[in-house]
Order: sequence, then structure tokens, then C-alpha cells
Amino acid sequence: MNKPVSQAEFPTPTVTTGPLAGSRRVYTQPEAAPHLSVPHREIDLHPTANEAPVRVYDCSGPYTDPAASIDVEQGLARARTAWVTARGGVEAYEGRPLSPLDNGGATGKYLARAFPVRHQPLRASGAGPVTQLEFARAGIITDEMIYAAERENLGRAAALAGAAERRADGEDFGAAIPEFVTPEFVRSEIARGRAVLPANINHGELEPMLIGRNFLVKINANIGNSAVASSVEEEVDKMVWAIRWGADTVMDLSTGKNIHNTREWILRNSPVPIGTVPIYQALEKVGGVAEDLTFDIFADTLIEQAEQGVDYFTIHAGVRLAYVPLTAARVTGIVSRGGSIMAKWCLAHHTESFLYTRFEEICEIMRAYDVTFSLGDGLRPGSIADANDRAQFAELETLGELTKVAWAHGCQVMIEGPGHVAMHKIKANMDKQLEVCGEAPFYTLGPLTTDIAPGYDHITSGIGAAMIGWFGTAMLCYVTPKEHLGLPDRDDVKTGVITYKIAAHAADLAKGHPAAKLRDDALSRARFEFRWEDQFNLSLDPDTARDFHDQTLPKEAHKVAHFCSMCGPKFCSMKITQDVRDYAAGLSENEKADLERQADEASKGMAEKAEEFRRKGGEIYVEEG
Amino acid sequence: MNKPVSQAEFPTPTVTTGPLAGSRRVYTQPEAAPHLSVPHREIDLHPTANEAPVRVYDCSGPYTDPAASIDVEQGLARARTAWVTARGGVEAYEGRPLSPLDNGGATGKYLARAFPVRHQPLRASGAGPVTQLEFARAGIITDEMIYAAERENLGRAAALAGAAERRADGEDFGAAIPEFVTPEFVRSEIARGRAVLPANINHGELEPMLIGRNFLVKINANIGNSAVASSVEEEVDKMVWAIRWGADTVMDLSTGKNIHNTREWILRNSPVPIGTVPIYQALEKVGGVAEDLTFDIFADTLIEQAEQGVDYFTIHAGVRLAYVPLTAARVTGIVSRGGSIMAKWCLAHHTESFLYTRFEEICEIMRAYDVTFSLGDGLRPGSIADANDRAQFAELETLGELTKVAWAHGCQVMIEGPGHVAMHKIKANMDKQLEVCGEAPFYTLGPLTTDIAPGYDHITSGIGAAMIGWFGTAMLCYVTPKEHLGLPDRDDVKTGVITYKIAAHAADLAKGHPAAKLRDDALSRARFEFRWEDQFNLSLDPDTARDFHDQTLPKEAHKVAHFCSMCGPKFCSMKITQDVRDYAAGLSENEKADLERQADEASKGMAEKAEEFRRKGGEIYVEEG
Repeated sequence: MNKPVSQAEFPTPTVTTGPLAGSRRVYTQPEAAPHLSVPHREIDLHPTANEAPVRVYDCSGPYTDPAASIDVEQGLARARTAWVTARGGVEAYEGRPLSPLDNGGATGKYLARAFPVRHQPLRASGAGPVTQLEFARAGIITDEMIYAAERENLGRAAALAGAAERRADGEDFGAAIPEFVTPEFVRSEIARGRAVLPANINHGELEPMLIGRNFLVKINANIGNSAVASSVEEEVDKMVWAIRWGADTVMDLSTGKNIHNTREWILRNSPVPIGTVPIYQALEKVGGVAEDLTFDIFADTLIEQAEQGVDYFTIHAGVRLAYVPLTAARVTGIVSRGGSIMAKWCLAHHTESFLYTRFEEICEIMRAYDVTFSLGDGLRPGSIADANDRAQFAELETLGELTKVAWAHGCQVMIEGPGHVAMHKIKANMDKQLEVCGEAPFYTLGPLTTDIAPGYDHITSGIGAAMIGWFGTAMLCYVTPKEHLGLPDRDDVKTGVITYKIAAHAADLAKGHPAAKLRDDALSRARFEFRWEDQFNLSLDPDTARDFHDQTLPKEAHKVAHFCSMCGPKFCSMKITQDVRDYAAGLSENEKADLERQADEASKGMAEKAEEFRRKGGEIYVEEG
Repeated sequence: MNKPVSQAEFPTPTVTTGPLAGSRRVYTQPEAAPHLSVPHREIDLHPTANEAPVRVYDCSGPYTDPAASIDVEQGLARARTAWVTARGGVEAYEGRPLSPLDNGGATGKYLARAFPVRHQPLRASGAGPVTQLEFARAGIITDEMIYAAERENLGRAAALAGAAERRADGEDFGAAIPEFVTPEFVRSEIARGRAVLPANINHGELEPMLIGRNFLVKINANIGNSAVASSVEEEVDKMVWAIRWGADTVMDLSTGKNIHNTREWILRNSPVPIGTVPIYQALEKVGGVAEDLTFDIFADTLIEQAEQGVDYFTIHAGVRLAYVPLTAARVTGIVSRGGSIMAKWCLAHHTESFLYTRFEEICEIMRAYDVTFSLGDGLRPGSIADANDRAQFAELETLGELTKVAWAHGCQVMIEGPGHVAMHKIKANMDKQLEVCGEAPFYTLGPLTTDIAPGYDHITSGIGAAMIGWFGTAMLCYVTPKEHLGLPDRDDVKTGVITYKIAAHAADLAKGHPAAKLRDDALSRARFEFRWEDQFNLSLDPDTARDFHDQTLPKEAHKVAHFCSMCGPKFCSMKITQDVRDYAAGLSENEKADLERQADEASKGMAEKAEEFRRKGGEIYVEEG
């Protein structure tokens, strides 16, 4: 926020509350930990459906629960802090003093108001387990693991109760998706590094969730103010708006001034993991001059953000000095902001970056708060011309090595991936990442499958995201329609989130997640039976579906009408199908067997006739040639 | 058009004219036929780019040429009629008299005004070649083939002149994409049925184009009024609007009254092939009662539409009686409108449909005008639950048989495909189609990869369309955001077209079309060099790209600024890449070799360090477990 704002005038951020259309936020108590209250969303169907409510994954937080009291000035309840302190191994301490530099030196009317409440930070107090990875390796199932397992299971019991032919099929490319997610399965996935549960011990407001190849594919939404646009209030609103539509995590990519205060408002009101790129803030602290960055400034920034509760940090430690010149011949060079900061630093000092040489010290800081690594792909391709080149894959190999180092330090790790990649080169990215990063979760931006559609890069990238999610990527970073052109506003955030929910869900279906198809089937039944309201409410975006319908058929009566705008009231495909069903139901066993035989014969049908015609003269013009 | 409209008040349809931003419509004269003038679009770049204009495929017609005089009341110039009559084999004749039933019995103020000009129809006059397939088999290269070959080649010469490493890569799944498209290659592709050139001899306004696996992937836009909405003017406007943004063909799916007159206005103003589903009009002629349909009414409708110049007909001849009951257990039964009409007819009469039993007579009619078959998939899945089932594939096998029959009669054929298919089941559709339909071009609707996003089905289907296009589908039928909810308006048409241009282009890139990547690379260079105007103009939708940019950085000066809204004026990734390039350019040969060696070593880097740490104590918490 770089616009002047008086403290007195700083408004309380307004956020969207209330349930989605036709939905209720419900809670279940896991058997393994009845003190936990795990949220889901249930979509109620019309009584004529005679179907149970459809349960879907819910990352919207208490904002969609009318029973929850929301006070953005106080932040969300910090239920999780009790779980963290109860298991020990952490200590409260005074915390790092806030410096004016943390807000970019903003003062007076340029300084955004501090969050009204301050919580004392926690950190690891000894060598005992503190990260989810350390607990998992020690064979300990945490409350967070139980909570996250419960969320992943929605509807799965119902799916498994169904007949064998209703079970999901799919091609999972070697994943190991279980029929039912148990807390022990979650523990084992985290222990082997195949999943992360990003959960800074200082993020007490968190509703824990999982990122891993054997869980539902997740999506991330980027928000953040910049040197040229937007304010604290807008960013808090965008965060709540993004999770309302399904963002599983949110990255705060703020630059410019007021970074610290903006982040505090976001974190204290966020039920989802928050990620950042700490080098952005470190750069602000040195006046935007990359070569002036030092390890001390960077490490201090990590502690600052870790104390606030940031759940994962993008760290571009794979940008090694020797890789930088490999990008010189590219069409679009280095497009990652963090990557180019580090490249500039490496060139200026002609030495390896401190992110790489002092990586183990970074690990120690991140372990103390259980901040998850998101190892950044600073050399990702910025155009399809540069995809899968030597610079990109050399960095990926280094990220694989760093993964093992971080794991050795007890830190959770995921790996960031591209970017811009044409369809035929996408799978190679996934395969290479699996090979060199020991199955640590892959977290990709898109990829965009063509460069020719600025203004529509949610779509160019949604195609690539669906595919790479199918191949095994655990989390998809959204791209909005504003990519390459400007900062996303509220509408762009929603469009980006919905597009990526589509990609993630398409991937879940193709992988064969046991319960993924239940929602599709429920919606298709609603469509077939002209339960318009159910069709809207089962949609990822009920408001838009309803609005589009009303544009053509605005009358309320049409929402219960047994026809749609495509065919009109007189003729209806769906009606005829009912006739077909009635016909089929009226057939005797003999008639059925007879029809089966006819169907078999029919599909071989006219071959002879065609042959005969061809013999008789169908080739006549060829002879003229 | 079912709203009353007085003849005097019937307005001249207004259509959008003028070039796209930064573009010019240009014409080339093919060597093989210098009398032809073949359109392309050239996008001019800023002088600082020092690059030739980028040539792209243009299907917008004369509407984007400021030199062309457009009079919607007269229709476009009919240059192609001279090519058709010059080669003979056709005769002009009086034509079928117009019946009030052709416009659904609309009279007085409910009857849309007839198109002001009437052209006498042509038909085949004997056994000599009249269809493009017959000419191709006879070894004759038509003007249409030369014209279409010239369009396909844009930029390819430039691509081939480039260095070897600039050549496109790709995975084409067994296609045979040539380095350069010659008229002879076009002829051979048509002769073997692997491509169609839909070109009714009565569509004199046509700019011929190709649909086939070894040519650029094409897209179709559906328009058409219905019993509940829209008018003739709106549909003509939508057609011009759709081709402006890149629709290669347009289907007029009008129902209700005034079908004949609506179609005439569209055809006389259309430079792209127009497709229809004649059974829709035939159904109107029998008052909407499917079981009252007869072959005579249907055949008469085919002649009516063929005389007008419709280039391809969807014919649902694969809906065989025995397949109908196979759909009874589906989640969404039969969702194809044509499919359900024929299913209803089959059940009512308990016999095979006349489309199947009298298929050869249909072939004879279509041959006489060179109307291309688009064999309809009446049993396509309407939900992912129903994808790839027995009903769908049994029908596809019948379509394969019918393809051979139509070929034997000299008719061009393409095959329609689904629909709703989760990602892991898409390739099986393409493989099966190739296997049973002798490589006749596949023409699919999407497919939608999930059912849960009404309001966003351009995206759910764009994912599937890109993939199936990559696998070998020749033309992709667009889906708009209004799919399942209402009739698309102008904005929806544009969104659907742009989304499908993205899918088609992503497919071309992945298949390795020699010139496809030139536009991506030009745009990426513009992006890298902050040539904002070039970036906008090279986009599929320059207007939206410019508008999005201006929302964040509205000042005109920013369009030449060397920064973007993501990083702001102080810091810029792209600027740093220039530093990298300068650095690399300043290296001696020895320094370069040294860096190469370092890069090789670096990517193996920290393995030992990680091992060492693990040995020293990284596993400490495991021992506690």
C-alpha cells in the first residue's frame, strides 16, 4: 500500500461472509481425535432428488458459517495453538522487535495501521520433534494429520459403499491413492516426504491441509499489493474471496511498502496456509538493489515472517552461479522475480548465492517454526521456446539435492515448477521432478501451453495445469486473466480460482480419486432431471450458473420447467431419454437378449454393402486419373 | 426469430467491420493459380523490433479489409462460382420452390424478410467429378485445393529458412504433417479421405479451407436462433463476429420459425463453410413430432439447404434401433438433439431409421452439391459417467461403416465425437475413431473433462479440446460459457472462439506444426523487450489484452515503459536478463568452457553434503520413534 492513508481513516477490511448458495458448512469429529471439529461443505438437493446432500471439500474458513462471529480486527480463533503447545517442544518468546524497515520505512500517513492484536511467537525449544515431518518420522500422528485426513475423506465412504461398477477408474501414473485416507496413511506420506502439511506453529488460525500426490490436487491463489497498486484492505478481502471459491493456500506476494503489516492482517484472518517469497521483502530492505542483499538481512526476514506464522517460503536456492549464463540465449531469459534477483546477486559478486551456500542455516530457521520449503524454480521458462532447457533442468537437479538436505534437517519440502510448456513437453517435467526430487510434492504455475493469448492465460495455463495435475503435480498455482498484463482484481481472483478448481478436479477424476466423481454424477443427474437449482448449487460457481440461465430464461417458473433454452418447451432430448428408459424397462428377457444380439451385429453392419458398391464402381473416378 | 417484426422495420443486420488492432488483411497469389487471391492477416510490429510482420491464418473474410465494400443486403462477392462453372460437370436449374413450411409457416409480421437477392442453384449434371473428393481421386487439383494450400502455409517458408534448432519439435501420434503444404499434398489428403474441403458448389462466397489431421487444427462456432430467443439480425452479426475472432466454420443450429430465411442471410454473407443439422428443420416441418418424420420430408429439406449452399450436414445415421436401449442405464441418456429425435423415431416405428436404411440416397443428394457429411454422434455421452460406453462406441463403429459407403458415393466425410470425457479416457476416443473410420477427420465437441462447472464449460471443454486436438482431431467444436444454461450472446461467442483458438493452437504446437511456434516466439520477444503494443497485437484478442493492461497502468506512457505492473518501475526481471546477456557476451572462450564444466558439476552438487548430514544425525528423530 503506497497510497497515503491516515490511521484514523484506515478502514476495517470488509470481507465476504455467508454460505455459498444452497450450501451449509458442517463439521465432523474424527474418531481418532473427537476434540477436533473438521469442516466440510454440504450441498443440499431438492427433495425430489431423494439423494443425500453432496459433501465437498471446504477451504472457505469460518467466513461461510453463519454461526461464526467474524471480526477482522481480532482475527480468527486460534484453536490450533493449543494443539501445538500441548505436544511440547516449543517455547514462547519475546520475538524480534519490529523495525521501520519491515514496512519499507513507511511513516505517517503512508504507514498502514498495524494489526490491533499481538500474539507472542513460538519456536522450537530443543532437539525434540517440532515439524510435522519430524513427528511423522517419530511415528507420532499429530492433530493436524488427523484433521487433514478427515477432510480428504469426504464422500469416500459413500463411494466405497456403492456397487463395484460405480467405483472410479483412472490412470494414476504410479501414484498410490488409497481407497480411504487414514491418519496413519497421512503420517507415512509425510514421513517419506511425499506429502507436506504446511503449518507454521505460529499460524494458530490454520485449518490444516495436505499437499501430496496421493491426496486431492490443491490450488494456490496469489495475492499481494505492489509498488503501483492496491491496499491492505483489498488484499485481506481478496484472500477471503479466494478461499471462498476454493483456494487451498494463498501466497502473499506483496512488494513495495507496508509488507509486514499487510501480511499480519492476512495471516490473522487466514484459515489456509499462507506462503511468501521472503527475498521480495529482503530486497525492499536494501532499497531494491539486489547486489546489496546479505544473508543476515535475509535470515532476519525469515525470522520476522516465521514469527508471524507464514506456512511456506519460496526459496530460490537452486539458482547457481554456473547456471546463470545458460539462460543468455533464451527468448525470455529469467522471468522469475526471485530467480532474477539471485542471478543479479551472483553475477555482481561472482560467487554462489547465500541461499545456496548457507542453505543449512536456512533449514535451521525454518525447522524452528515448521515453515515448509517451497524450493523456487528461479530459472523456469518464461516462454514455450525456453521450456525444458538445460538451465531449467540443471536447477531442478539442484533442487533435488537441496530437498535431501532440507529433509535431513527435519524440514518439509515441496518443489516449484514451470511456467510455459507446450503440451508435448509437460510430462517430461513431471517425470524428471519425480526422478530427482524423491517424490517431494510438485507445485507448478500452470504451465501455459501457448504464449499467444495474454488476457486469457488462465485458460492457456488451465489446460497445462489439468494435465500436469493428472500426471502427479500436487498443487497448482493459479494464473489469472491479468497474467503478464496487470494485477488481478477481485473478479480476476475468482476467475483464476474457479479455472484452477476445474483443472484440479479434472486431474482428480483422471487419476481415479475414489470420491471425485460423486459430484459430477450428482450434477449430471440434476441436469438430466431438470433440477435447475441443484445444477446451479452443485456448480463450482452457483451464482454465475444461475445468472447465465436467467439471462436466457429469466422467469422464475423456468427454473422448475422441464426444458432448457437450447431446445425450447416443445421438444426435449432429456424427455426422449425417459421414453427410452420406459421402453427398455418394458422389455422381456427374451426381447433384451434379442436386442443385444442385434446391437452386436449392427456395429459390423454395412461393411459388405460398402465393399459391394466399391467393387461395382465406386472407384470409377480413380480410373480417370 | 419468433418475435413479431414488420417487414418495413426489419433492419439491415449490422456487422462488425474493420481490421483487428495492429493488423492488415493481405492477399497472395498462389504460383499454381495466379488468378486466385488468398487472404492472410499480417500483424505489424514496432520498428524497434526489426522483425517482419507476423503472418497468421485469416478466416475473418472481407469484413476486416477496409478496401472491401460490405453490403449485407447484397451478400459477399461470389468469386468462387466462376471456378465451379469453369470446370464443368454442373448445371444451373430453377431450384425447388420455397414453401411456407420452410419458414415454419411464419406469416405476416412473424415472417422474417427474405434475403433480397436470389441466385439460381447449381447441381451435378452427370457422372463426371463434382465433389472435391471425386476431383482428388481423378488426380485433378481444383482451385479450392490451391487456395486452401496457400492459406495453410503462412509463415512456413520463414520457419523452414531458420536454423535447424529453431525448427518445431512435437509429438504427432502418427500424423504425417508435411514441412510445406503443396496443392498436390492437399489433393492426396482429400483423395484418401484424410481431409475434407467443405465447399458446396452453391456457396460462391466461400473462402475454401481444409479440415484434416495433417493441417492446422480448426474450430467451429455454433450459432442459431431458437424457439425462445434471438433474431435473424443477431445471428448474422454473431456469424461475422465469430469469424472475426477465428471461427473456421460456423454451424447454424436454428430451430423454431424462419429457419430458411435466417440461413439464407447467413450463407450469403459467410466466407466460411456453414454447417447445419437438417433434421432440426425437418422436425419443424412436422410440427415438432419426431415420429411423424419421413424420408421424403428429410430429403426435400436436404435439397432445400443444399441449394442454398450449406457446406456440411450433420447426419445422425449411426443411431441404430438396437443401440437405443443401450442408453437406458446411462446417467444422462441421449443428450444429442438429433440423436434423440432419431431414437424416438426408431422406437415409435420399431424399425431402423430412414437415415440408415436410405443412406445411399442421402449420399446421392449430397454428392450432387458436394455437401460434406458430418456423421453425427447421436449417442455421445452427456456426462463423464457415460463416456466411452458401449452405446457410444457401437455407434462409432457404424459411422465407420457409413464413412466407407459415403466415400464410395464420392462424398466427403468427417465424423463427430464427444462430448463429456474425463482426461484419461480421451485418447481412447481418438484411437478408436482412427481405427474404425479410416482416418476420416474427427470433429469433436470439447470434450468436457468434468461436469461440475456450468458457467465455465468453455474451460472444462477447452482442456479436453486441446488434448484431443493434439491426439489428432481435425476440428474442435467450441463450447461457450452458456453451455447447458442458455443461448450464447455476442460476448459468449467471442469467449468460446478465443478459448478454442487457444486449444487448437496448443494442439498445433504439441503436434509440431512447422510454423505454429513463430507467433508464440514473436509475442514472447515482444514481451521480453517491453514492446507492449506488439504484445497486445500479437494476442488472439488485442482489445482485451490492452484493456487489462490499462486497468492497472492506464497512462499512455506506460505502454512504452520498460517495466510492468508485477514488479514496478524500480526492479525488473527482464532488465536483469539483459545484464545476464551482457555478461555472457563478455566471456572469453576459456571462461565459457569453465562455466560449462561448473554447471555440469553443480547439478550433481550437494549430494555428498546431504549424505554426510544424514549420517551425522539427520535421522535422529526416527530413532526416537
